[in-house]
Amino acid sequence: MNRPVHGGNLTWAAALAGCPTSEIVDFSASINPLGPPPSAIAAIQRGLKALTAYPDPNYSQLRFSLSQWHQLPPEWILPGNGSAELLTWASWELSQSEVTYLITPAFGDYWRALKAFSANVEKCPLDLGTGDWEINPKSKIYLNPKSAGLLLNNPHNPTGKLFAREAIAPYLEAFALVVVDEAFMDFLLPQQQQSLISAVQDYPNLVILRSLTKFYSLPGLRLGYAIAHPERLRRWQQWRDPWPVNSLAAAAGEAVIWDKGFQQQTWDWLLPAKIKLFQGLASLPGLRPMEGAANFLLVHTEKPSLQVQEKLLKNHRILIRDCLSFPELGDRYFRVAVRSQEDNQRLLKGLAAVL
Amino acid sequence: MNRPVHGGNLTWAAALAGCPTSEIVDFSASINPLGPPPSAIAAIQRGLKALTAYPDPNYSQLRFSLSQWHQLPPEWILPGNGSAELLTWASWELSQSEVTYLITPAFGDYWRALKAFSANVEKCPLDLGTGDWEINPKSKIYLNPKSAGLLLNNPHNPTGKLFAREAIAPYLEAFALVVVDEAFMDFLLPQQQQSLISAVQDYPNLVILRSLTKFYSLPGLRLGYAIAHPERLRRWQQWRDPWPVNSLAAAAGEAVIWDKGFQQQTWDWLLPAKIKLFQGLASLPGLRPMEGAANFLLVHTEKPSLQVQEKLLKNHRILIRDCLSFPELGDRYFRVAVRSQEDNQRLLKGLAAVL
Repeated sequence: MNRPVHGGNLTWAAALAGCPTSEIVDFSASINPLGPPPSAIAAIQRGLKALTAYPDPNYSQLRFSLSQWHQLPPEWILPGNGSAELLTWASWELSQSEVTYLITPAFGDYWRALKAFSANVEKCPLDLGTGDWEINPKSKIYLNPKSAGLLLNNPHNPTGKLFAREAIAPYLEAFALVVVDEAFMDFLLPQQQQSLISAVQDYPNLVILRSLTKFYSLPGLRLGYAIAHPERLRRWQQWRDPWPVNSLAAAAGEAVIWDKGFQQQTWDWLLPAKIKLFQGLASLPGLRPMEGAANFLLVHTEKPSLQVQEKLLKNHRILIRDCLSFPELGDRYFRVAVRSQEDNQRLLKGLAAVL
Repeated sequence: MNRPVHGGNLTWAAALAGCPTSEIVDFSASINPLGPPPSAIAAIQRGLKALTAYPDPNYSQLRFSLSQWHQLPPEWILPGNGSAELLTWASWELSQSEVTYLITPAFGDYWRALKAFSANVEKCPLDLGTGDWEINPKSKIYLNPKSAGLLLNNPHNPTGKLFAREAIAPYLEAFALVVVDEAFMDFLLPQQQQSLISAVQDYPNLVILRSLTKFYSLPGLRLGYAIAHPERLRRWQQWRDPWPVNSLAAAAGEAVIWDKGFQQQTWDWLLPAKIKLFQGLASLPGLRPMEGAANFLLVHTEKPSLQVQEKLLKNHRILIRDCLSFPELGDRYFRVAVRSQEDNQRLLKGLAAVL
């Protein structure tokens, strides 16, 4: 079996560990360990009887709920089959720019989507120390920013760096299209978030991608949404198939965004668990975790990450995310999700044994 | 609310009828009324606990089951988020041909997918009487068939005409790409089917699309698959997002294809129910049903179809499929699914009252 290029490939991990997938403790996909919330499961159960009908192609109820949540008119929101599906259409538009800037290291799926439509990509390296990045001043973009696109995630994956709204604002003024993937933004406390949703009505060239399956622990169900100008979203709807979101995902999405108890519970868990995991990792020989705003930590390792990964998997049934698919990071980094205090301790013990 | 271009839009219908969607008897989407089979619901229930994990991006188990079922190696099969998602990628490839022939009247989603990538489409009209069609001999294709594509469904939607394998074979020899959508083929008795699956290993230019949600009554869940040369399917996988099929759909798909009891039950229901519905329709004034191989009937009507549709909806909460989205048919045709004997009687009574 080929080495996976994304986290969360339990089939691959279980084959290597020689155990069922259910026995793998997965630190490789950054999924909230507290979910799915009972509100999601209840909505799915209620939705089972409607599986004999096609989903509403307009997803009116889900859009209405999301529009209430974000205080935007429904036509500014488009649900998708995970934010990955919406990334495909964003990339189809980006590929029509002369150049698309991509902040690197970049989430592997960005490369997939941009390459699918032969986009002309220029890398824009992130300073791993400071978290700063800038468009290369020698780039031809300065001749024609009106035909340039930018794709980035905020918080950034895999480093966890959070970019201030102000760092992105200049590109909104200058560029043809700016796509900001905020897949992990909801893990931050509301007052700490740097979402650009509040700017979307001022910038028809802004697209924001959001996920509902990381925070609400439903990656198997597939659900995300785009926030952008209604004309753009109508265009995407004309391109893509009419029913991309299954009706159980739509039902779950409508329910979970109002589950304030689960949201508070998640924020209450994450901060102390992340601090403790960070400290535990920092105290291990040869490891240097980076501070990150999201629910995962990027860790520099003196030992090759593949060796650490393989031993953890075979001896401890723990799966971490190697960073070989990020050429800028290579074999000296791995990424781990923040999980329950108990699982995090198990990871630290496992790491102590294999380092 | 805009008039829908596909069947099965219950949200639109319920708004017009002034009732909940659950009270609409839906003849507009051609879904098996006997399902979903308990084997599907059981598989979905078992799958709920795995929603916290990403689907296996290779969908190995589902591919293995489908490959056993079709007696093909697994790499010749690619699951998709409904066959509509796979149609998108088929159309991306068709758009790279100089011309794509489309048998018309054509399922509206073919236009959507081909237009998304600005394919050069040439219509190839079906003779509604004989069911014959041919590529226009004046067409430029005869200069360069190696750069031509063909897209059709078999059985044909909305007429229900079944094309013999031999009618498609010449295009397999000549054309760059032939895409055959067999979404309704499984409703035919195995010995009556004209599937091209048995030819796929001989023709790397052949793509077959199949649906699992019409026969097994799971359109809300989204599940289809493509059968084609492994190199082509690998290419599609590199273009599309890594997890297009939700894990509940994958689990249901694995279960239902082995549900021989449900398959037999469906074949046992369909033939007598269709004959009786056909006879009932033929006996009504001003209606002329066409014989069809699938689980739906196209009906010629002397009264405008919109008027019939609206009255049925408002007075009887029955939804039929108008054919306005097929310009070749216009307002003198409607399509109805074959449903249970009881529902079919209700339709015939309703029609008798509004005609």
